[in-house]
Order: sequence, then C-alpha cells, then structure tokens
Amino acid sequence: MRSVRSRPDEATQPPIDPTLVPFFKPRGIAILGVSADPHKLGFNLARNLVQSGYAGAIGFVNPKGGSLFERPIYESITDVPEPVDLAVLLIPADLTPGALKDCGVRGIRAAIIASAGFRETGDEGEALEKECLHVAKAHHMRLMGPNCVGILDTHLPFDTTFLPLPGPLAGEVAFLSHSGAICTVIAACARNQGLGLSHLVSLGNQIDITETELLAPVAEDPETRVITLYLEGLRQGRRFVEKAQRIGLLKPIVALKVGRSESGSRAAFSHTGALAGKETAYQAAFRRAGIIRADTSEQLLDFAQALAWCPLPRGKTVAILTNAGGLGVTAADALESHDLQLTQLAEPTQKALRDLLAPAASILNPVDMLASATPEQYATSLRILLEDPGVDSVMVILPPPPISTVGAIARAMSPIARGAEKPVVVTLMGDSMIQEAVDCFHSARVPEYRLPERAAAALAILSQRVQYLARKPTAVVPLDHVQPEAVQSLLSQETSSGPLDPLAAIRILKEYGIPVLGLQRASSTSEAVTLAQQVGFPVALKVASPHISHKTDVGGVLLNLDNEQAVAEAFERLIQKVSASRPQAEILGADVQPMAPQGHEVIVGALQDPQFGPMVSFGSGGVEVEELQDIDFALAPLSRSEAEQLLENTWAGAKLRGYRNVPAADREAVLDVLLRMAQLAADFPQLAEIEINPLRVLPQGEGTLALDVRIQLDLKKDETP
Amino acid sequence: MRSVRSRPDEATQPPIDPTLVPFFKPRGIAILGVSADPHKLGFNLARNLVQSGYAGAIGFVNPKGGSLFERPIYESITDVPEPVDLAVLLIPADLTPGALKDCGVRGIRAAIIASAGFRETGDEGEALEKECLHVAKAHHMRLMGPNCVGILDTHLPFDTTFLPLPGPLAGEVAFLSHSGAICTVIAACARNQGLGLSHLVSLGNQIDITETELLAPVAEDPETRVITLYLEGLRQGRRFVEKAQRIGLLKPIVALKVGRSESGSRAAFSHTGALAGKETAYQAAFRRAGIIRADTSEQLLDFAQALAWCPLPRGKTVAILTNAGGLGVTAADALESHDLQLTQLAEPTQKALRDLLAPAASILNPVDMLASATPEQYATSLRILLEDPGVDSVMVILPPPPISTVGAIARAMSPIARGAEKPVVVTLMGDSMIQEAVDCFHSARVPEYRLPERAAAALAILSQRVQYLARKPTAVVPLDHVQPEAVQSLLSQETSSGPLDPLAAIRILKEYGIPVLGLQRASSTSEAVTLAQQVGFPVALKVASPHISHKTDVGGVLLNLDNEQAVAEAFERLIQKVSASRPQAEILGADVQPMAPQGHEVIVGALQDPQFGPMVSFGSGGVEVEELQDIDFALAPLSRSEAEQLLENTWAGAKLRGYRNVPAADREAVLDVLLRMAQLAADFPQLAEIEINPLRVLPQGEGTLALDVRIQLDLKKDETP
Repeated sequence: MRSVRSRPDEATQPPIDPTLVPFFKPRGIAILGVSADPHKLGFNLARNLVQSGYAGAIGFVNPKGGSLFERPIYESITDVPEPVDLAVLLIPADLTPGALKDCGVRGIRAAIIASAGFRETGDEGEALEKECLHVAKAHHMRLMGPNCVGILDTHLPFDTTFLPLPGPLAGEVAFLSHSGAICTVIAACARNQGLGLSHLVSLGNQIDITETELLAPVAEDPETRVITLYLEGLRQGRRFVEKAQRIGLLKPIVALKVGRSESGSRAAFSHTGALAGKETAYQAAFRRAGIIRADTSEQLLDFAQALAWCPLPRGKTVAILTNAGGLGVTAADALESHDLQLTQLAEPTQKALRDLLAPAASILNPVDMLASATPEQYATSLRILLEDPGVDSVMVILPPPPISTVGAIARAMSPIARGAEKPVVVTLMGDSMIQEAVDCFHSARVPEYRLPERAAAALAILSQRVQYLARKPTAVVPLDHVQPEAVQSLLSQETSSGPLDPLAAIRILKEYGIPVLGLQRASSTSEAVTLAQQVGFPVALKVASPHISHKTDVGGVLLNLDNEQAVAEAFERLIQKVSASRPQAEILGADVQPMAPQGHEVIVGALQDPQFGPMVSFGSGGVEVEELQDIDFALAPLSRSEAEQLLENTWAGAKLRGYRNVPAADREAVLDVLLRMAQLAADFPQLAEIEINPLRVLPQGEGTLALDVRIQLDLKKDETP
Repeated sequence: MRSVRSRPDEATQPPIDPTLVPFFKPRGIAILGVSADPHKLGFNLARNLVQSGYAGAIGFVNPKGGSLFERPIYESITDVPEPVDLAVLLIPADLTPGALKDCGVRGIRAAIIASAGFRETGDEGEALEKECLHVAKAHHMRLMGPNCVGILDTHLPFDTTFLPLPGPLAGEVAFLSHSGAICTVIAACARNQGLGLSHLVSLGNQIDITETELLAPVAEDPETRVITLYLEGLRQGRRFVEKAQRIGLLKPIVALKVGRSESGSRAAFSHTGALAGKETAYQAAFRRAGIIRADTSEQLLDFAQALAWCPLPRGKTVAILTNAGGLGVTAADALESHDLQLTQLAEPTQKALRDLLAPAASILNPVDMLASATPEQYATSLRILLEDPGVDSVMVILPPPPISTVGAIARAMSPIARGAEKPVVVTLMGDSMIQEAVDCFHSARVPEYRLPERAAAALAILSQRVQYLARKPTAVVPLDHVQPEAVQSLLSQETSSGPLDPLAAIRILKEYGIPVLGLQRASSTSEAVTLAQQVGFPVALKVASPHISHKTDVGGVLLNLDNEQAVAEAFERLIQKVSASRPQAEILGADVQPMAPQGHEVIVGALQDPQFGPMVSFGSGGVEVEELQDIDFALAPLSRSEAEQLLENTWAGAKLRGYRNVPAADREAVLDVLLRMAQLAADFPQLAEIEINPLRVLPQGEGTLALDVRIQLDLKKDETP
C-alpha cells in the first residue's frame, strides 16, 4: 500500500514516550472479559483480535473459564502464561480497579479499559475512574479509556476493538477519536471509499492518555502518511498545539472538531462533561498548528484520501476533463469557490486535443470530449493534459456515458492517473452505475468523489498543504523597550482581582512600548480646568470609576471641549449625569485627555483562554464587530506573519491599506502594537483581559495611539495553563 | 406512492398551452431512427419506450425497415398507421428538417429532436436548427430540443429517452434540465436515494420550448409534488420569474443554477453559447420567485426528497435522537448553522424518557440513548419526542450499534416515522452496514441522509418553505408624486446614448419624488462666486464634464468652501487640475452645491439586466462595497417587503438602525427612495444605469438627500426585455 511518490523533505520526529510502546507494539495481549456469547461485546473483542492476524501471544480471561476460538479461557490474569504487554479490560466497571491491580502485579504496564460505566454515568463512576488511575499509578501502568472502543493497527497487525467486521482496510491514514461511535462510522465509510487506515484509536474518557500524547507514536509509524482526528475538546490545548506544530511538518494532520455552535457546545458538555471551548480559540490554535480543518466526517476522509494518495501539486491551476459540458461548468464553479484556477491550456495541448477529439468537442478548459468520447480518448486526453506544464492538477468528471461504460473508461484512465506526478482526482456520478469504476480507481489509488464540489475541496487541501510547507518560519519576534520587571512590580501592588485603574492600565501598556494617549485625573472642577490648560485645548473628559466599564453608554465621555468654561461645565454635567444613571458606582472624578488626531479606529485585545492560554484579538470596533463579526484571534506571543494574518483576515485590517482618496494608515505601527500586546498577555497570565478600544491609527509613518485601555485582573492566574 | 399527508391551501394553477399537451399525454409516439444495434442510441430509445409500459400506439421508423422487439419498423413516418401525437427524431442532423416536414405533413404537431449536431457544433449546425424551426412553424408544430435526451413520465407511463436502464422509480419529483448528462446522473442518484420522479425532461438547445413554458404543464400533473430544475441560463428571465412565482405557491420549486463563478460562467458560454448571467441577478430573481436554491446535485435531491415526503413543520424547533453522544454534538452544530433550534424537552417528555432508557442516558436534547439502546427503545423514544408539543421536527442519528443492527432499529422506527404529522429525518452512518435500514426507511417514505449536515439542511428547507408560504403578499406599492410624462418629455430630447448631464439626471430623480441636493452650473470663476453667494456658504464645487464619471479620482471635487475667495481659488484650481489629469475631457465648468448635513452614506442604484430587466441595488459605498461585497439586488419595481429585505441583507442597511450613541437614521426615507428608484427603472428601460452615490441619510424623520447622481442612457433599449 505504500506509495512510491516522493514527499518533500520535512522536519524530524519528536521522541516517543517509552511507556506508550506497549500500546503500539505489544508482544502479547490479554483480554479480560471475553465471552462465548455472540451477542456480547466480549465475543466481538476476542473475535476481532483472533481474526486480525495478530502474531503475538493472545490470552483470554474470564472467571467462568472454558475455551473460545480453540483457545483456553483463563480464570484470572495471573494464570495467563504467555508474555503480556497489553491488557484489554471489558468487565463491569466496579470490578475494574481490582482487575487492574492484578494486571499490575502480573507486571503489565499498559491497559485499555474498554468498559463503560465511569464518569459518564455520574459521581459513583467518577470515583471508580479515580480509583483505576490510582491503581495504575501505583503499578507504573499507563491507561487508555475507560469507555472506549480500543485500538487497532492494520499493519502489525492487531485489533483490540469490538467494532463490527469487516474492519478497516490496511492503509496509511491514522484515526484518533474522542468518540467511540464515530470510530464505527469512520471505519465503515473509509472502507467504502477504498481508503485504508493504519491505526484507529478510541480515547474514551482519557483519564490518563490523551490525544496529545498519541500524536508522536502514531506519526512515527512509517505506514502512516496522514493523521486524522475527531475532537470534542482539548484539555491541554497549548501542549497539543506545540506537538501538532512539529508533527504537522512531517505528516499532515486533519481534524474534525465538533461543538462549534452554542447548541453543539452545550450538547458536548452534557455528553462528556468536557468544555468544548471557544470556536474562535480553536480556529487560532489550528491555524498556528497547521492543522487542516474538516467540517464533516465526509470531509475528514475526503481530505485524508487526497493527502494519502496524491502527490502534492506545484501550484493552483487545474484542468477539467469531462464528457458533459454542464458538469464542466459545475466543476469550474466549485474550483473557483476554493480559490483554484482554471488554467489556459498551452497551444500544443490544444492542438493535440483537437487532433484527438470530435470536431465539436471543446478543447478549451474545461475540456468537453462530448458524450460519445471513447475510453481511449479519455485516457489519451488525460495524458495530454498532464503533459501540459501549465497544468498543476487534473479533475476528471465522469457521468455514465450513453454507450460505453464508466468501468471501461476507468480501466483505460487509471494506469495514467496512477503513474502521474501531478494530482488527478475523479468525480464519478451516477451511483449504482459506477461500481466497477469506483473499484478500479481505488485500486489505482486515485481519489474519486461523487460531486465536483467534493473533488474541488480535496484538491484545494493539497494546495493548502503546499502553502503550509512553503511558509516562512514563524519565530516570535524579540521586542525592544519591553520592561517586564516594571510591570511585575506594578502588579505586585494589586491586592484584588477586577478592573485595574485606568492610570495603572496605561502605565502597563507604556512599559511594553505601546503608545497611549496621556490621561490625568481631576477630582474637582477647578482641577479639571487646570489640567486642561496644561495639556492644551481641545480636551476630552472621561468619567473615572472602577465600576463603569462602558463609559459612553452612561454619558461618561465628553469630547472637543475647547475652552475653560466648556471644561468646567462639562465636568459638572458629567459627574451629575453619571451619578444619576449609576447611583451605586463610586466616582473618583474625571480623566482629562488631549483630543487625539483623526484616523482609523481599530480594537486590539488580549485574553487568557482556558484551553489555549494567552491570545490576542484584532478587529473593528463598535457596531462593525457585532454586526460583521469583524474580529480575529491568534495565540500569543505572535510571530510577525501571524500578526500580518490578523490584519489580512479582518475588514479593520483591510481598511488600513487606504483607498482612493483615503490615505493609507500606519499598518507597521499596528503590527508593532499587536506583537507587544501578545508578549504582554503571554508574560502575565494574571492579565485576564486587556482591551485597547479604540486604537487610533494615524497616517503612514505617524504611528498609533491607544485612546482607551481596560485591563481585567485575575490574581488567581499566576501561570500559563 | 401518493402521500396522505395534508398540504396547505394554495393558489390556483395557471392555464396550460394546449400545443404542449401532446408532449405530456400523447396517444401515439413514433420514433424516427430506431436501431437494432444495441450499441446505438436508437436501440436504447426503442427499448426504453417499449419497456416503459406505454399504453399508446408505438411506431418505429427507419428507412432500412425490418423489425425490432416484435414490432415492424416502417420505412417512413408516412407509413405508420397508428395515431401519432408525438414524434421523436434521432437521425442525422442534416436529415432532420426533411423528416420534420414529413411529420408535419402526417399531421404530427409535436416533435422531440434528440439528435445532436446543431448549434453546439457551429454555424452550419445553427443554420440547420433554424431550418427545423422554420419547418415546424409552417406546420404549427412545437419542438423540444435539439440535442436533448428526451422526456419521460413514470405514471402515464412513457419513456422517450435513451438513458441507461434501470430508469427512475415512479414518484413525485419532476426534473427539468438544460443538460442531458445531468439527466443520467439525477436519474441514477434519485433511484439510489429511493426517490421517485414523476417527469424527467431534457430541454437541449431550446429552439422552441423552454423551461419557462414547461413549468405549468409539469406542475399541473397531480402526481408531481416538487419541481426540480437544472439551469445553465435563462433567456426570458422575467417571464420565468412570473411563472415560477405563481406555480411556486402550489408546488415548491428547487433549482440548481450553474455558472455562478466567473470561470463557471465562461465555461457555460463555451459549452452552450448561453450567457450564464450575473449571479447577483439570479439571486434576486430566485428570491422574488420563491425558488429554493440548491448548491449541488446532491442538495437538489436532498431538498426535493424532504419536500416530497415530509409534512411541513409548524416551527423551527428540532429534537435529536441518537445512540452516540458525539454525533448528537455534530447534529446540534449542523442545526444551529441552519438557523434551527434545539428545543428544551417538556417535563413529561423527560420523565417518559427517563422511565424508558438506561440511567446513564441523556434525556436532554440531544437525547442520547447510549450504544446499548434496543430497537424498541429507539421506536418508543421517537414516539415520545413526536408527542412533545414543543418539538416541531425530529432528527434521528443512527450509526451502527455494537450489538443490534441498524436494520432492526429501522424496522422498529419506520412505522412511527411514517405515520407522524411532523417531519422525521434520519441520518444513517456507516455505509455498507446500513443497506437494510436504507431500504426500510425508503419504503416508509422517511428521508435518510448520510451526514447530519445534510439532514439539517433538508429540515431547514422545510422550514424555509413554511416561511415562504406564510409571507405577506408582495404587491408593488403605488407611489405619489411620480411624473412619468415629465421624464418622458425630458428623455425625448436626448439624441445619443451615454452619460446624461448631471442637471438632467437630477431633474429626472426629482420628477420621481427623490430628494436631491440642488446643483447649479458655473462656467466662470465669477459665476461660481455668485452662485455660492446665492446658495449660502459653505459650498462644494464639482467638475462638470460628460467624460468624467468618478470625479473624486481626478481631484474634481472640492468641499467646505466657506467664503468668496475660497470659492474663486477652488474654481481655478479645479479646472486646472482636472484639465491636467484628463486633457481629452471636455470641461463645462463646475457645479456649485450647498454642503449637505452630516449623516450615513449609502448607495442606491438601478440597472437593466439582460436576463431579468429592471433591477435596483442597495449597499455601502466606497471601500466597503468592494471589500465586503456589501451590496444586494432586487427586481424592480419593488414591493415594500422586498425593499425592507434589501436593508436587512446589507451592512449598509443594518447601520441605519443606529447603535449605542449613534442615532438611528431615517430608514423610512431610504425605503421610499428605493421604491421610487425601482419604479423609475421599471418605467424607463432606456435608463441603462442609475446611481445615487452617495445618498446621504439624515437622522430619523429628517429624510435623505441624493448628493451625486449618475445616469447612463441607452437609447436602443425602449422596451423591457
């Protein structure tokens, strides 16, 4: 099943934890809880292991004894004579801690608890789970599960799952899953798609081993070319990102993350008690880790298939070959929606096609050979297109022709597609009429999809992978004029969590080199007037209160005050108005600020995400962020290219480029603020939320000014998660 | 195959053209070009008609004579003794006009030209096509095709296509297609999905009969519950919209329109020579017609299946029933992304489920019965959920369970789903392991999909249909203060196409009651100063030239001139600058305008679309329309609810609602301008393009002001397409 196609030179593999080796290369496997009753899962489990062709020792255990598949059933794990590296437990939850202990005593250092009845059933189950972990720790044993389907390897081979047979084909795609049910689905769908799996791992409740730890051992397997993940949530998000980032350079990782919506996230919580986490945080984390995101289980397999079977293309151009003009149009739509390009065919290509095909055929791209095209014409046209240096990939679209059969066409084309150094994907349409062609393309390792849209999406993923491998290193930029000691000493004076005083917030930003519009506190009318004279008219007044965070909402901001009398009147009006609307709020006075020069306004923020730690955000302010969702997130600290992406992905960032008679704003200065903000959030996890709203962006070369700064302190957080 | 479920009371059917009846109810069919060679399409055609079970007379014709399927082959159509209402021609293109004439002489008034070799092959073919049409007209004969697959009816039944067998199942979905190849695909996929078709019609080059004419006869068939369309372009877009709008109230219409992207649109042109048309225009047209849009052929069938098989839901709430928590999460995500709601289950529902299911099962929504759920538990849980008055629809998700089979579960559930008065859709996952369940649900007319996302999309379509049927009538609003005669007399003075003089453009808008900021032309410095004194300072100066349409780009606009000297200097600078940058442009002077009050800025436009006639547009100006694509279109004239939709669908419209300390703008006045603009475009097709850019929108109750108006005249267009 190995492909001979070359892969780009890639990074080296992180080391593998030796305690995980027994899960991947066991010399012997014992099953506790086998059953001779074909209606019990213990029967499936024994059957699957025996039928898998596992070459190591197999030990069956059940207190009732007897025999199964011509092997003895031992009454206890201690009786099993053969070497046992891995125990699989499928026994009642309440008996599991005891059995685990027996395993530990027997010298077994790796166990899969397949049984359910633990945390997912309530407090009692959770206590049992903890007991299992306790026993395992005492015996230096690693645990997978509980409440999982098990693990299988199609190459070693072995199968410790109770999945219905036939199981997955042998292949190159590893699948790690938080859900057991989805393992059944993926195994069956991959088989139907002709796609083989190398490993399938069901993680269950993850009391010990998590998806993060398994990335390295799965990637290390030379049979694995693509790693696929089904995720409901991540507990150690930052560690996951770091591992995935290193491994993703070696082998592509495709993930289906569920619980994206509010309802989905609630459903995930009631399902496993796990927090699904914020969708925006996952987007940022996956982007940094280079993880390819699938939206459905179908996409997970579609993308994995293209990545496992196809060489990577050199660029984004595609040629379409079909016998039906209408489907060529559909395919062109689909390619364009995925940012791929219909290339113009070279003159020699057009000539060769003209000589080959019927006069009425279209030799432009899409190439429409007409319904009468023969299998030989299909094959030769494919060869001609692949030889065109301007063509990076080919998409073939094949509805059942009126006279010939799809099978005959597939037989003619597949050797050419198989030997190609460019990706060829096929869209086969017409369901029951195409089975022969499906099988033929599968055995030639040519991905086939049922819709042009799916084929286009898969080609786009290959192109995305090329771009990811070609991108510049994303090292974090070292910053000058950053004073963490000063911030540390400032924060050490704070005794309670909550909003920081604006004056302190401004000082913190300034210590990290972020330009902030000055602010001075006036506690009386006359003080306000004096301060205004000092900073120079016109000025702004903003209410100062630890209890009011949206000052404009309560009439707490007055702008453009251009003389002494205006300032005096404004101060009194401000205090009066705010006191009236928020009688409970403690009012310290008003902050006097010079009016800032005109310019664009953006928002720069930072927060500590429970899954992924420090993050920064960038976007539009006010109504734009709410209506247009114009905000993007990234993990902190930032590389320069990540900061640039924040600008590229948002309307707020796009606007800074300037337009017609609107001059370009100081994009560089915004990037600098983003890098500094990210570093600040990464250095001080107790800064739970930071928001510059707005950051005024001046014309090119003139910098930025933070006009208003809010910091939310959380003194419980003194280290990064 | 008929459902007993009730449908809402709906409008009446438009009358059917009697000349089309022979295509739908032929008493006899003759095939010209039958063949005894099973490798020829003429064999397929004869075979399909004989095997279809057609009860009328069948006449085979081929000059070679002989017999086929135990029937004589006549040498000429004139020899066929039986009654013939419909002739199907599958003979070389160059012989077709002669054969058509023979048909005409024989008294046949309806013919399908299945043969290819016409317009799609070049000039010669196009001439043959015209000759066919000429012959047909002379004999009062209607034509379908050429270059088409034919027509079939599964109920009458008859089949005049050469599609591979088995053909479609008998059912309730009519399919009309511009492409022949897609007919094969749809027939095969629908069969695989257990979905029957009532009619399948391939339209080919449409030299006579078009999709628009066929809507009424297809809708009239009592067997048809849903009409599906595959469209590459529409020639008489406005007529299509009007027909579809009436028929759509009776039976839902689902359309797949290809050629949406630029590449796709180019491909469509090179395929059929048809202009795919502007995607924005199709969006507007389909919205008015209430056509449900499918993005892929898969969606076309998914949506048709739900509409044909399910009762309509009362509202948007859905309950999810599954045996796998992870898939419940996926389904919840999918439902939310389609604007459906996971309802909270009523207390009695929760209690009933608690009594029924295992203690660890989740009785919230999604209901997770756990992997061990029995077929009976599945069935009873479905019944319980359907009885909850807060549940409008149910989505069942069914991966293969570890012990029981999906087939057993399907057998238990399908009677309950079938009898339900609420929609039930099923997601069956696991490919080859589910065939029994697939068949079982199909025979119970319960839609089943392979992904929760597809099931959610189908449920959403049912909900969209309910909303469409419930929406208010969309009558066009009669307007006061509209003076078409004045505009007519103004336009009658214009002698050439091109940009209208701004002064004329302003007068036209004013005659339709649109408030425009005044403008007076100065041809000298002193005249500019005098005019400025008259309108009052500050003023704006705008260059007046028939050759410059984007005045700001050439420095042709100067604002806020607040005294005589400033105006004088500005006039000279303006003329100098514009002359320098556009030396070829004729400069008439400068227009003097008072400065407008501050407010929001939007763009209101109108155009004459080649497919759909007069349209209006609404959106943001400047960088926002380019970067955010913030613009929406509607067919003119407008109903009030259509005008409101333009505001709702755009960011420009959303902003008018006001926000925090930004006051609400005069939304009513914007609606009024939209209605007037639409009426103007509808009344005067020679106004090829009208643009108000910007329309200044003042605070609520203060109205709007068009600050700049451009009209492009096209004197060739003197009537609506």
